[in-house]
Amino acid sequence: MEIIKNVRTKSPLVHCMTNYVTVNDVANIILAIGASPIMSDEEKDVEDITSICNALCINIGTLNQRTIKSMFIAGKRANSLNHVVLLDPVGAGASKLRTETAVNLLKEVKFDVIRGNISEIKTLAGFSGSTKGVDADVADEVSEDNLDAVIEWLKKFARTAGAIVAVTGKIDLVTDGEKCYVIRNGKAEMKSITGTGCQLSGMMCAFLAANPENKLEAAAMAVCTMGLSGEIAKTHLAEYEGNATYSKRIIDAVYNMNDEILEKGANYEIR
Amino acid sequence: MEIIKNVRTKSPLVHCMTNYVTVNDVANIILAIGASPIMSDEEKDVEDITSICNALCINIGTLNQRTIKSMFIAGKRANSLNHVVLLDPVGAGASKLRTETAVNLLKEVKFDVIRGNISEIKTLAGFSGSTKGVDADVADEVSEDNLDAVIEWLKKFARTAGAIVAVTGKIDLVTDGEKCYVIRNGKAEMKSITGTGCQLSGMMCAFLAANPENKLEAAAMAVCTMGLSGEIAKTHLAEYEGNATYSKRIIDAVYNMNDEILEKGANYEIR
Amino acid sequence: MEIIKNVRTKSPLVHCMTNYVTVNDVANIILAIGASPIMSDEEKDVEDITSICNALCINIGTLNQRTIKSMFIAGKRANSLNHVVLLDPVGAGASKLRTETAVNLLKEVKFDVIRGNISEIKTLAGFSGSTKGVDADVADEVSEDNLDAVIEWLKKFARTAGAIVAVTGKIDLVTDGEKCYVIRNGKAEMKSITGTGCQLSGMMCAFLAANPENKLEAAAMAVCTMGLSGEIAKTHLAEYEGNATYSKRIIDAVYNMNDEILEKGANYEIR
Repeated sequence: MEIIKNVRTKSPLVHCMTNYVTVNDVANIILAIGASPIMSDEEKDVEDITSICNALCINIGTLNQRTIKSMFIAGKRANSLNHVVLLDPVGAGASKLRTETAVNLLKEVKFDVIRGNISEIKTLAGFSGSTKGVDADVADEVSEDNLDAVIEWLKKFARTAGAIVAVTGKIDLVTDGEKCYVIRNGKAEMKSITGTGCQLSGMMCAFLAANPENKLEAAAMAVCTMGLSGEIAKTHLAEYEGNATYSKRIIDAVYNMNDEILEKGANYEIR
Repeated sequence: MEIIKNVRTKSPLVHCMTNYVTVNDVANIILAIGASPIMSDEEKDVEDITSICNALCINIGTLNQRTIKSMFIAGKRANSLNHVVLLDPVGAGASKLRTETAVNLLKEVKFDVIRGNISEIKTLAGFSGSTKGVDADVADEVSEDNLDAVIEWLKKFARTAGAIVAVTGKIDLVTDGEKCYVIRNGKAEMKSITGTGCQLSGMMCAFLAANPENKLEAAAMAVCTMGLSGEIAKTHLAEYEGNATYSKRIIDAVYNMNDEILEKGANYEIR
Repeated sequence: MEIIKNVRTKSPLVHCMTNYVTVNDVANIILAIGASPIMSDEEKDVEDITSICNALCINIGTLNQRTIKSMFIAGKRANSLNHVVLLDPVGAGASKLRTETAVNLLKEVKFDVIRGNISEIKTLAGFSGSTKGVDADVADEVSEDNLDAVIEWLKKFARTAGAIVAVTGKIDLVTDGEKCYVIRNGKAEMKSITGTGCQLSGMMCAFLAANPENKLEAAAMAVCTMGLSGEIAKTHLAEYEGNATYSKRIIDAVYNMNDEILEKGANYEIR
């Protein structure tokens, strides 16, 4: 496997239109994996910026009317250049504006990947997703009990959407509609950190841009990298440390990640 | 005392309309205490978002005309749902726009708590507060010498405003107009960290939402938690570490905080 | 040398109009060196805010039409008050809007310092700079081989612009058109951190505001402080740590910096 080597060698430039809550961590995790981030959300700026990039990450976590407009402009330009484009529909289901924006983006922009929690993905799939904030509704959690059913349903949505769909939670699922990676990396404590999902979305763009022949595996390995980094970071945490230091150490672990460590630590099966 | 236990058990969802300087730390400290944050400042989004939350934190640190409009909309909706609402009037007194916005918010929105430094609170109280940036004017510091007078004045303002008022600085004061908590937790080095005030405001919303029968004590214990976390974090700081690492360690200490540690370490008297 | 002592004693207030990616680190590094930051980008707020400050830092990293307008307003007011004003033209050359904004700011606002990477500075100087994201184009790197030519060219641009120009990269150059500081502090790993440039710009404003008689040396010593802090921070980094922790430790090192450490560690020559 040379997925991470490809990221570090090709060093793709990722245009991030992401929320202002977690943007600094998104920038640092993209740098940690050996790629480069650039942020721009102004309608008169995004076409130029996305044109010099290799991938576009659209995250609606702190959307507003101005930036929504820019997301459509950037998405269409990225499509016309065949760049990797990812949607992170933060809070879809939590408000009418977020749901509508995500749904309309899916209609007007071609996405390579949609990455969210199960509640957001259910909303997009037209199911009744009751989203509590930015976390997956507990009742909707993917578990060993409902795994088979969720995989079938998710594959169907991926085929309908014509995109790779990545659902992250206790168990992570990544499917292109045919194969589904079932991933069991990560630590429960990662839920106490803001923005691990946003970071994963940004980093995943770099994985896909550097591995264009192999997008499904690249998306799955980005998920494994995040989870495994959470596992590694936890081993270095002192008792008096908590979520804030943990957050930085996870990015540190990504900084030190390579294909060998990933192959050894990735915990997944393909269904 | 079960104040923190209540936060961790009920895990209130806090809608933050806060500045982009310290928003990441605000999100992580809310997660550290066991609650959940969601950020939204778009006028077409805030009513939906605040409706699914338990509390609203309005912080005017990087206000603009667009977000000011959203603050009024969100505040009124939160009032109509009887949610906890807190105002952090960052920089009131430092500019006409900030002062006017804070004063108008106080007129049109009912706040459970107003939390700021002495200079900002003096501005709101109609006194001549000369604010130097976002820090309390030194001449206006609360000290052992002027403590009695400040408490009397603060109680009066709290009664006029119909809100709990929390003034943080070297000595912290939290009053509902009748009782006043005088709190002596914290470390001087906390002044070298951006956003400890913003973080406290966000976390305080969670304390009040989870302890609705006991809002004054909840507000005071949020202040003690912040100060005590600063004390604990300092004991783990290496000589070569400074304000940036200290900032993360304080959030870590909040992550590890419980009612027992708080009861033992809280340093306050009631006047 | 009492350059840092002056910063810590006078504690200038720096008005930052900076991008939302790195703003938290900018605030903390300004606090680390003993100054105070205040952020404001609203057109109705910036005149009041900049009036109570000692310096203004304009960074166009996440510019938009609204904030661009505010930058001109703030810049002109700061000029009228003879405050220190610095331009960080993030991404000039990467988009038409960024280039035009930077060029127009240079026309309408008098800057004490322009600080960027070689590609951004080349763009501003009217040379053909091909900017890859926010990093200097590799082909444009300042090296021992092209050093003499770059210095000559940079001095000319500084004279034309009527400003101190600071180019940061592997080798850092700071010139007022007559003398040029050639600085070899820093570590290659600093390139893996988002925002070291933005942080330097913010901190540099404080250095100049506190050392008005000695602006060129102040600007150069700000660059040395940043690089030396990167060197010191690296000595404290564990093998499992990476760019995220490194970022915090650099700010920590600034927190612990003084003129003695700086004089001993600053690695520069004057040409």
